[in-house]
Amino acid sequence: MKTDVARIAVLGASGYTGAEVVRLSALHPNIKVTVLTGDKQAGKNFSDVFPHLVAATNVPKLVKIDDVNWADVDAAFCCLPHATTQEVIKKLPSSLKVVDLSADFRLKDPAQYAECYPPSPSRHAGPSSSLDGLQHPPSRPRQRLPAAAPAAAPAPAPQAKLILPDDILIDAKSGVSGAGRSAKESNLYCEIAEGINSYAVGSHRHMPEIEQGLSEAAGAPVRISFTPHLINMSRGMQCTSYVKLAPGVTAEDLRAHLAATYEGEPFVRVLAKGAIPHTRHVRGSNYALMNVFPDRLPGRAIVISVIDNLVKGASGQGMQNLNLMMGWEETTALAQLAMFP
Amino acid sequence: MKTDVARIAVLGASGYTGAEVVRLSALHPNIKVTVLTGDKQAGKNFSDVFPHLVAATNVPKLVKIDDVNWADVDAAFCCLPHATTQEVIKKLPSSLKVVDLSADFRLKDPAQYAECYPPSPSRHAGPSSSLDGLQHPPSRPRQRLPAAAPAAAPAPAPQAKLILPDDILIDAKSGVSGAGRSAKESNLYCEIAEGINSYAVGSHRHMPEIEQGLSEAAGAPVRISFTPHLINMSRGMQCTSYVKLAPGVTAEDLRAHLAATYEGEPFVRVLAKGAIPHTRHVRGSNYALMNVFPDRLPGRAIVISVIDNLVKGASGQGMQNLNLMMGWEETTALAQLAMFP
Amino acid sequence: MKTDVARIAVLGASGYTGAEVVRLSALHPNIKVTVLTGDKQAGKNFSDVFPHLVAATNVPKLVKIDDVNWADVDAAFCCLPHATTQEVIKKLPSSLKVVDLSADFRLKDPAQYAECYPPSPSRHAGPSSSLDGLQHPPSRPRQRLPAAAPAAAPAPAPQAKLILPDDILIDAKSGVSGAGRSAKESNLYCEIAEGINSYAVGSHRHMPEIEQGLSEAAGAPVRISFTPHLINMSRGMQCTSYVKLAPGVTAEDLRAHLAATYEGEPFVRVLAKGAIPHTRHVRGSNYALMNVFPDRLPGRAIVISVIDNLVKGASGQGMQNLNLMMGWEETTALAQLAMFP
Amino acid sequence: MKTDVARIAVLGASGYTGAEVVRLSALHPNIKVTVLTGDKQAGKNFSDVFPHLVAATNVPKLVKIDDVNWADVDAAFCCLPHATTQEVIKKLPSSLKVVDLSADFRLKDPAQYAECYPPSPSRHAGPSSSLDGLQHPPSRPRQRLPAAAPAAAPAPAPQAKLILPDDILIDAKSGVSGAGRSAKESNLYCEIAEGINSYAVGSHRHMPEIEQGLSEAAGAPVRISFTPHLINMSRGMQCTSYVKLAPGVTAEDLRAHLAATYEGEPFVRVLAKGAIPHTRHVRGSNYALMNVFPDRLPGRAIVISVIDNLVKGASGQGMQNLNLMMGWEETTALAQLAMFP
Repeated sequence: MKTDVARIAVLGASGYTGAEVVRLSALHPNIKVTVLTGDKQAGKNFSDVFPHLVAATNVPKLVKIDDVNWADVDAAFCCLPHATTQEVIKKLPSSLKVVDLSADFRLKDPAQYAECYPPSPSRHAGPSSSLDGLQHPPSRPRQRLPAAAPAAAPAPAPQAKLILPDDILIDAKSGVSGAGRSAKESNLYCEIAEGINSYAVGSHRHMPEIEQGLSEAAGAPVRISFTPHLINMSRGMQCTSYVKLAPGVTAEDLRAHLAATYEGEPFVRVLAKGAIPHTRHVRGSNYALMNVFPDRLPGRAIVISVIDNLVKGASGQGMQNLNLMMGWEETTALAQLAMFP
Repeated sequence: MKTDVARIAVLGASGYTGAEVVRLSALHPNIKVTVLTGDKQAGKNFSDVFPHLVAATNVPKLVKIDDVNWADVDAAFCCLPHATTQEVIKKLPSSLKVVDLSADFRLKDPAQYAECYPPSPSRHAGPSSSLDGLQHPPSRPRQRLPAAAPAAAPAPAPQAKLILPDDILIDAKSGVSGAGRSAKESNLYCEIAEGINSYAVGSHRHMPEIEQGLSEAAGAPVRISFTPHLINMSRGMQCTSYVKLAPGVTAEDLRAHLAATYEGEPFVRVLAKGAIPHTRHVRGSNYALMNVFPDRLPGRAIVISVIDNLVKGASGQGMQNLNLMMGWEETTALAQLAMFP
Repeated sequence: MKTDVARIAVLGASGYTGAEVVRLSALHPNIKVTVLTGDKQAGKNFSDVFPHLVAATNVPKLVKIDDVNWADVDAAFCCLPHATTQEVIKKLPSSLKVVDLSADFRLKDPAQYAECYPPSPSRHAGPSSSLDGLQHPPSRPRQRLPAAAPAAAPAPAPQAKLILPDDILIDAKSGVSGAGRSAKESNLYCEIAEGINSYAVGSHRHMPEIEQGLSEAAGAPVRISFTPHLINMSRGMQCTSYVKLAPGVTAEDLRAHLAATYEGEPFVRVLAKGAIPHTRHVRGSNYALMNVFPDRLPGRAIVISVIDNLVKGASGQGMQNLNLMMGWEETTALAQLAMFP
Repeated sequence: MKTDVARIAVLGASGYTGAEVVRLSALHPNIKVTVLTGDKQAGKNFSDVFPHLVAATNVPKLVKIDDVNWADVDAAFCCLPHATTQEVIKKLPSSLKVVDLSADFRLKDPAQYAECYPPSPSRHAGPSSSLDGLQHPPSRPRQRLPAAAPAAAPAPAPQAKLILPDDILIDAKSGVSGAGRSAKESNLYCEIAEGINSYAVGSHRHMPEIEQGLSEAAGAPVRISFTPHLINMSRGMQCTSYVKLAPGVTAEDLRAHLAATYEGEPFVRVLAKGAIPHTRHVRGSNYALMNVFPDRLPGRAIVISVIDNLVKGASGQGMQNLNLMMGWEETTALAQLAMFP
C-alpha cells in the first residue's frame, strides 16, 4: 500500500483538531480526504466552517456520521470529544484503521477512566491507535512521547532510575485551542486576553494518564503533581517539570540520557546545553523541544519542554501514527518547520 | 534545469523575511540553501538567531556577504533593507538570478524613489525580479498582484474603466512584522498589545508604488489615498478600499470582473458573494483573498482584501517568482494552507 | 442633592458595561450601589460573576429585576441588551432617573429602529437619558459626542458647512468587548487572536443613529458609509473618517473648528497638530482623542478619533450623564487617566 | 502634614513605573507632581513621551536630574534602573523622603548584591523606603509583601513552621512590562506574541531577595527555587508555589494561617476556598490575591498568587509606602478596582 493513495475520513471535522488534520493532509501525497463528518454542520461546505481552508478545494462537504459509506474509507481520524468517541468507534467496521485523538482510550484502567471522565459509559475495545501508542506494530521499536507530551518529557528518566518517582511536579501552561471550539464564556477573547490563570488545581484529569505512561516507563508506580495554566495564546503547551535527582545523578546526566533516548526520533530535539525552548519555536510544527537545567536547590533538576498542542499534541502525532500504520515514511506531511513570528 | 537542485543564497537572512524564505525552502524539492548572510550575526548557527528553525539542520552558518563565493550560488533572495539593497545588488555577478524583496527597485522613477526613501543614492539597474513583476519573462502572460497587495486589490478595475481613477481611498491594517526585527521602542510588545493606531497619515511611502501599479493597469494616471494602521498581530495585512463606481457599474459587476481577472491565478481567490476575508484565513499561506461589497453610499463599492505580509507580501511571492524564473512549477513549496487558529 | 449619596441600581450587572459601572462607582463619593440585577445569575455574589471586583466588598448580591424594591433606588443604569431594555424601562417608576446604555432609544424614528433592530416591539417613551444626549436639561448648553463616538468625530463639521454631507466614509475598528459577554463561537479567543476582519459591510445598524446625530448637527440630511472591523483587543474603538472638504476649506480649518467646538469639554481632546491618537492612549479612561490630517487626495481630509468603548462609549459616558442629571460635578469618578501599557 | 499637598519628584519618569506613578498621582489629593526627570528626554512634554497621559495637563516638562532644585521637592519616587539608582540617591539631600522602586537596596548583604547585579558599585546607605519595607516606622506593625510579591506569598508560612524551609519551588509567570521600556529585540511584539518561555532558569537574580525576606520571616535560612517565565501580556505576575507541609499540617491550615495573617491588610485578599486568582483580576489595581490548594502529592500544598507588577509590584506599593511615610491614609489614590476586560 506504500505508494497508493488512501481514502481518509475525518470524524468530528468541525473542531480545531479536525481542521488541523485537513491542513496537514494537503501536504500528504498518499492521502485523499474523502469524508468529513460534523453532525451539526452537515450539508455545509468545509470552507464555510473553516474559511482558512478555502484553498483546500478538493475536500468534500460535511456529512452526518450516520451517512458515511465506510466501504469507501481506508482509515479514519477520530477528532470527537470524549464519551462520544467510544460510541462512534463501537460502530465502525473492525477492518477500518482508526487514529483516535480523544482521551477515551488512553487510560487502560476503565475504573480510572470512569473517575476522570464522568459520566462514564462502559468502555469497549479501542481503536487501532490512540495517541499514547500504536497497537498496530510499527516498523521498528520506538520511544514515543505520549499524548500528554510535553508533560511527559521526564518519562525516560524514572525508567533509568535517574529521578525519584514520587516527587515530580509539573507546571504546565497551555493555549486556548486545547479547550476546543465550543462557545463558552470562559474562553471568550475578553476573558482570556492579557492574562494567566491556573485551573483544576490538584485535580486535573490528565494526571492519571501521565502517571500511567511514566509508571510503565519506570516499571514501578509513579505519582505526579500536574498544575495546568491557561494563557492567552491559541496554540502551544509548555511544561516546567521539577524533579528530584537520584543520589549521585546530575542534571547533565539527565540531559544526556534524554538526548540519547530521543536520538533518532524525527520530531524530538533535546536542545544544546543552556538553550531554552519557547512555545514560539514549535508553532505549527510537529516538533517537541526540551532541555534540562540544574535547579538552584541541591539535588533537583528542571526539565522544560514545548509542543504545539494541535500538532504534536494531537493531529500531527496522529498523522505520524497513521504514517507508521500504513507503512509510509513516518515524517510524511510533517516536514513543515515552525512558523515564527 | 527543471529537476535540478539550485543552490540558493539568502542575503539578509537574520530578518523575518529571510527566515521565512528558509521556512518555505524546507518544502521545496529543487532548493538547497547553501548561503545565509547576516553581517552582524556572521559566524552564528542559524538556529541561534532563529530557534524556531532548529529542525532545519541542513542550513549553513551565517556569513558576511563579502565572504560569499558567488560561483557556488545559482540564485539569491535579497532580504535586505532598502538603500543597502542597491549597494549589494550592484556588486553581484550579473549572471546571478536575484529575487529582491526590498522596495529599492519597485519605483520606476528614480526621482520618486529619492523622494520616498531619502537619503537617496543614485540607483543603478535592478535585479532579475523585484516583487512587482518579473523581468525574466514568465512562461505565460499573467495578472499579478504587486508587492503592496492587498492594497492593490482594485488594480484591475481602473483598467476596465469600472471605477473612477481619482477617488480611491485605501484603509490598510497591518501586523508588526512588516516593521522588521530591529529593536525599536515603538515595536515593543507593551507598545503594541491590545490596540490600534494609524501612522504616516497622508504621507506613506508605499503610495507612489501603488499608484504606479494602478496607473499602469489603467493606462492613465491614478491617484490614491492610503492610510496604514498598525495592529497587534505579528502577521497579516487587510485593506478596505473605498472606490467610486463608474456610471452604470454595480458592485457585483466589479466583483465579477475581479473574479474573472484572477481566475487561473493559483494564489488569488475572490470569495463567494458576501463572504468576508479575515487575515486569520491566510496566516502562513501564500493566498490573497478578496471580495467586493456594495457601499451604503450610492455609486460606491468596498473592496476588502487580505494577505500574510511575510508570505504573499514578501517571501512567498518571492518564491513564486523564483519558481517562474527557474522554470519550476509556480506553486512549488507554496501549497501550505493557512494555519488557524 | 449635591452632597447626598444616591442609591444606584445597575440593571443587567452581569455584562461588561454593568461591571464597568461598578468599577467607576468605587471612585464616586456620591454613589452607593444598592441593587445589582442579573436574572440568570440571581443569588450569586457579584465577585463570583466578576472576580476582578472582589475588592468591591460593599456591593450587594445579584437579584432578579422583578425582586427590586424601587422605593430604595434613586437612579438606575440600564445595561441590558436592546429589546429587553424597553420592556424593562416600561415598568420602572416614572420618578426614577435612568441612564440607558442600550440602543433602544437612540433612534428617534420608531420605523428606523424597527428596521435596524428586528424583531421590533412598539417602543414607548424613553428613559431620562440615553447615551446620545440628556433629556434632563444639563446645567449649561453643551456639544456632546453621541454614543457611537468616535465615529461621530466629524459631527460639528457639517453644521459649519466645512465638509460635504454626502461623502463621509468611516472606517471603524473596535475591540471585542463591544459584543458583550455572551458565549459565541465567533468571539472565542482562538477566533479573534492575531487578526482583523470587517463585518456587517454596507449594512451596520449603527449607521442610522450616526446619521441622525450628524443630520441634526448639520441641519440637513447627512448620509454616511460606516464599515466596522473587529480586532484582537478587549477595549477600544478607533475611527478613520474620510471626508470631503467644502470648497476653500483646508484640513487645518477643520482641525481648528473641532478644537474650538470641543474646548471646554472635559473629556474631549483635539491633539496637537500631527499627533496621532492611539486606542492605547484612552484605555480605561473617559477621554476621546481626535485629530485632523490633510489627505493626499486634493480637497479631502482624514479625521482620526479614539475612545474606550466601555468607558466613553458606554459606562463612563453614562456616569457623566448621571453626574449632570444629579447636579454633581460632571467629572466625578471619571478623573482616572488611561492605563498604559 | 496630613492635609497639606506635598511636592513630588519622579526620577526616571520616562519608564513604565514612572508613568504609573503619575497615573496614580492624578487621584491623590495630597500630591502635586512638580518634577519629572528623564535625562534623554529632557525638554519634552510628558505627553510626548507618554501620550496616554495627555489629560494630565498639570505635570511639568521633563528635565535632567542635575537641573532639579531639591528645595522645591518634598518627596521623590526613584524609578531608575539599578546601579544608576544608588549613584543618584547618593546625591540627594538627606532630608528628602525617597521611595525607591529599584533593586539596589533590597538586598541587605552588599556582597550578595554585587553577585546578583554586576558590575557592582560599592553601595552606600539607602533611601527612606525601598519596596521591601519601610525605614520610617509606619503607624502600626504590619505584615508586608516584599517587592517580589507574589513570589513571597508563602512568606508567613515558614515563620509559623507550617512548611519546610528547604523545599519551596516557585514557578513565576510575568508580563513584559517588567523588562522596562528600553528597545530590545527580545521584547519586540513579534518575539513575545502568542507564546511563553522560561528564562534565567536556575539563576534568576530575584532569588536572593526572596530568600532574604522568607528567611527573616522564618527566623532561619530558607532556600528556594524560582523559575520565571515570560508571557505575552503587558502587566501581571502569577506565582504557583509548590511547598512541602510540615508534618500534621494541611493545606487548609496553611490557607487559614495566610488569611489570618493578611487580615486587615487593605490590599491583600486570601480568596474563598477553591477560588483561583487570575492576573486579569488585579490588572491596574494595587491588590494581591492568593489562595492555597492541596496538592495531589501527599504532604504538599500549592499556593497561587497574583499581582499587577506595575502597581502592587512597583508604583502602587511605592505609593502605599509614601502614604505611610507621610502620615496619610494608607489607601489614598489606590482605591481603583481592577480593570477587566
